Amino acid sequence: MADSWVNSWVNSWVDSAERIGSDLHLELTGPGGRRAALIRALREAVRSGRLAPGTRLPPYRSLAADLGMARNTVADAYAELVAEGWLTARQGSGTRVAERAEPLRPAARVPKKSPPRARGPRHDLMQGTPDTSAFPRAAWLASYRRALQQAPNEVFGPGDPAGRVELREALTEYLARARGVRTEPGRIVICSGFAHALRLLFGGGVLRGPLAVEAYGLGFHREVLAAAGVRTVPLPLDEHGARVDRLGRERSVLLTPAHQFPTGGPLHPARRAAVVDWARARDGLVLEDDYDGEFRYDRKPVGAVQGLDPERVIHIGSVSKSLSPAVRLGWMVLPERYVDAVRATKGEREAWSSVLDQLCLADFLTSGSYDRHVRRMRQRYRGRRDRLVTALAEHAPHIEVTGVAAGLHAVLRLPPGTESSAVKAAAWQGIALDGLAAFRHPETDMPAVDGLVVGYATPSEHAYGPALEALCGALPPP
Amino acid sequence: MADSWVNSWVNSWVDSAERIGSDLHLELTGPGGRRAALIRALREAVRSGRLAPGTRLPPYRSLAADLGMARNTVADAYAELVAEGWLTARQGSGTRVAERAEPLRPAARVPKKSPPRARGPRHDLMQGTPDTSAFPRAAWLASYRRALQQAPNEVFGPGDPAGRVELREALTEYLARARGVRTEPGRIVICSGFAHALRLLFGGGVLRGPLAVEAYGLGFHREVLAAAGVRTVPLPLDEHGARVDRLGRERSVLLTPAHQFPTGGPLHPARRAAVVDWARARDGLVLEDDYDGEFRYDRKPVGAVQGLDPERVIHIGSVSKSLSPAVRLGWMVLPERYVDAVRATKGEREAWSSVLDQLCLADFLTSGSYDRHVRRMRQRYRGRRDRLVTALAEHAPHIEVTGVAAGLHAVLRLPPGTESSAVKAAAWQGIALDGLAAFRHPETDMPAVDGLVVGYATPSEHAYGPALEALCGALPPP
Repeated sequence: MADSWVNSWVNSWVDSAERIGSDLHLELTGPGGRRAALIRALREAVRSGRLAPGTRLPPYRSLAADLGMARNTVADAYAELVAEGWLTARQGSGTRVAERAEPLRPAARVPKKSPPRARGPRHDLMQGTPDTSAFPRAAWLASYRRALQQAPNEVFGPGDPAGRVELREALTEYLARARGVRTEPGRIVICSGFAHALRLLFGGGVLRGPLAVEAYGLGFHREVLAAAGVRTVPLPLDEHGARVDRLGRERSVLLTPAHQFPTGGPLHPARRAAVVDWARARDGLVLEDDYDGEFRYDRKPVGAVQGLDPERVIHIGSVSKSLSPAVRLGWMVLPERYVDAVRATKGEREAWSSVLDQLCLADFLTSGSYDRHVRRMRQRYRGRRDRLVTALAEHAPHIEVTGVAAGLHAVLRLPPGTESSAVKAAAWQGIALDGLAAFRHPETDMPAVDGLVVGYATPSEHAYGPALEALCGALPPP
Repeated sequence: MADSWVNSWVNSWVDSAERIGSDLHLELTGPGGRRAALIRALREAVRSGRLAPGTRLPPYRSLAADLGMARNTVADAYAELVAEGWLTARQGSGTRVAERAEPLRPAARVPKKSPPRARGPRHDLMQGTPDTSAFPRAAWLASYRRALQQAPNEVFGPGDPAGRVELREALTEYLARARGVRTEPGRIVICSGFAHALRLLFGGGVLRGPLAVEAYGLGFHREVLAAAGVRTVPLPLDEHGARVDRLGRERSVLLTPAHQFPTGGPLHPARRAAVVDWARARDGLVLEDDYDGEFRYDRKPVGAVQGLDPERVIHIGSVSKSLSPAVRLGWMVLPERYVDAVRATKGEREAWSSVLDQLCLADFLTSGSYDRHVRRMRQRYRGRRDRLVTALAEHAPHIEVTGVAAGLHAVLRLPPGTESSAVKAAAWQGIALDGLAAFRHPETDMPAVDGLVVGYATPSEHAYGPALEALCGALPPP
């Protein structure tokens, strides 16, 4: 099984490759001839489960070429295994591994993981997810096709760690137009979403803690920061948003200025100005989480704080709310002085975000599909929001609804001390939602606010009515 | 600009959303009427560069609806700005920002970044990149279309951190068949590539150093490990691959068993067995980097070490060599006891890899497109390898070529002490390639090996001949 075999293998290679079969890895060792070794190897592969029932084997000519064996030898081995019941051969469908009642897989010893997300609740009102039934499949596919067809070959080589320039150019135009962001493509770095941005900024040593954050915010972000060794210091909230006048020795502050998450109001214009003044005076930095800036309904658009001072604000956004979290794309708009460090942290080459998806999103933006989708979803979510407000006015007029001028969720205010039992009561009715307590910074000393966070974008259109009905039925009485 | 405005805005919303325009963020403040405020805001947006020359403005009806203004007011404002030269209006192409000789962008103050990859060398023989002209665009797009059309809605919501089950099932079948890997979908975790796998394993605290590595290997991987605080200990290499008998107190060892990177040989069968025995005896772990396992030419296929003991080997692969590094997808095949920890490290939801690309790759695998592509590329790369060997035999018979039985690169052995000048001589001829020194572990005490690492997959088909010719001309004389 040495040199002569290698030679015949080489000679038959071209033939095999032209035939274009499929690959099959076999170890041919042990006593006896080559035919016996092949039978043993195939039998073992089926018995162990490496070749699953129904798997189609390569044509015998192709396998013979791959193994440098005579075709007859392989054909004989296949025939013997068919005779033994390991394989089946049917005209037109080739040779396959036989179906068995009990495949003897070694994996059978391993308890099969249960699916990660078991059957969900009947009514999903968790915040954070857009309506998954509304993904613009046709328009996205059209952009993907154009992007793939027009891509120069170098796209398929190592990528720029800042992300494709086509996408950074499209974002520059879009963010200026729709969000009032002032930047240029050289200052944008593409990433896989908001958490990835935090990891690149703090995990890579570009920024250091302590970082001021809003007293109510996403726990997942605090976890990412804690894992990077960053201490977070909570800023209390009032009716005008984060109390930026309470900023102390922190080097930077993370805010959701367009729509405080989760309580729902915009940062007051005076506070927007004040936080930029603070950053200028203290050589500080504002991290702007613009997670749902596109979805505003009743009030005047709130532009990005970044527009007030592009050298003092890192503006961070993604398509997770506007399109889908399945498209793992986000962006950082950076002050000039951080660009090199962030690019270096990302590595010499693009090691994260799909380059093809980046080109697709660039086309999706420049072709106007993104605007069309956002407008369509804004209308849909506004309708949902209105139905929520109307239903509550009718069935639970004692419950105040806040934070509904924008975004994909609302906050139902509750009397002090009643939140926990309200969340439990909802769960009993098959409703999944969070209370405000789930978002509270563990170290804040601001008084607790009781409320339910209702994600009205999550259910599909037909499931929303029943979810609202169930919600109204589960709310605490006056 | 208060309540009455909000009302008119709400009333006109539906009209505007139906029209589906594009978004434009404007701050309407300051003295004078609404028309004056709008003119001021638009003028400022153009002057500051936020609205770039050529940008198309929303139709005035649409903007009027968005701002809750009378249509005439907006039309008047547009007309005035056209008269002033800020905007242009042309039948059929709408109202656009005027082109100017010198757009007054604030970004003009910022030196525009030079493109990250300046004009490359004339002949690119750097290892590590597949032929970018051979990406299977049509087949990939067909898979993407099928994946997008068949995807259930939940695909567009939060994703399983292990990756889509469709892809893990397809990989289970493929890796068993083609690489001799024994696993099941519950033990596979999808990631963005090999470096991401290292970060998840070591950066997240699942594994700890010190980690034994091959004395020659990819410096980038050592950097990723160093950044995660992991000390790497070099194992010397000989003609049978890594000296696994020199493993000491390390907890784990990272190997490239199918095709040592970069020197090119397979790990000897006795060493494959020995390293698994070591792992069993010491409660150790083998990390198997199967970076180009699909590309073998002359010799018997070398299966994955993982098949010897799935509980002692983490098998790691990606599509970066077989398809393209632009598709940011890789996988870890894990021993049972690491599955939960790696999933937990990845987070509660998929925060990294594009879920749509995952579904596309699953279809690409199950439809047979992946096998077809690999076979086609194997034939192409084998042809390149043969041309390299032939050219050297003719023009530089004194140069020994090694590591050519598999992979996408070859090593040209050089007399001791001549490598550095040979790399420089190649650079003078416009040839980009690395010497072996670029891959040497800084702490190894094995004798240095002189050689050039020639990536023969990198040039496009038409550029390969001239690159070979240049290479032969640049080699040191006998």
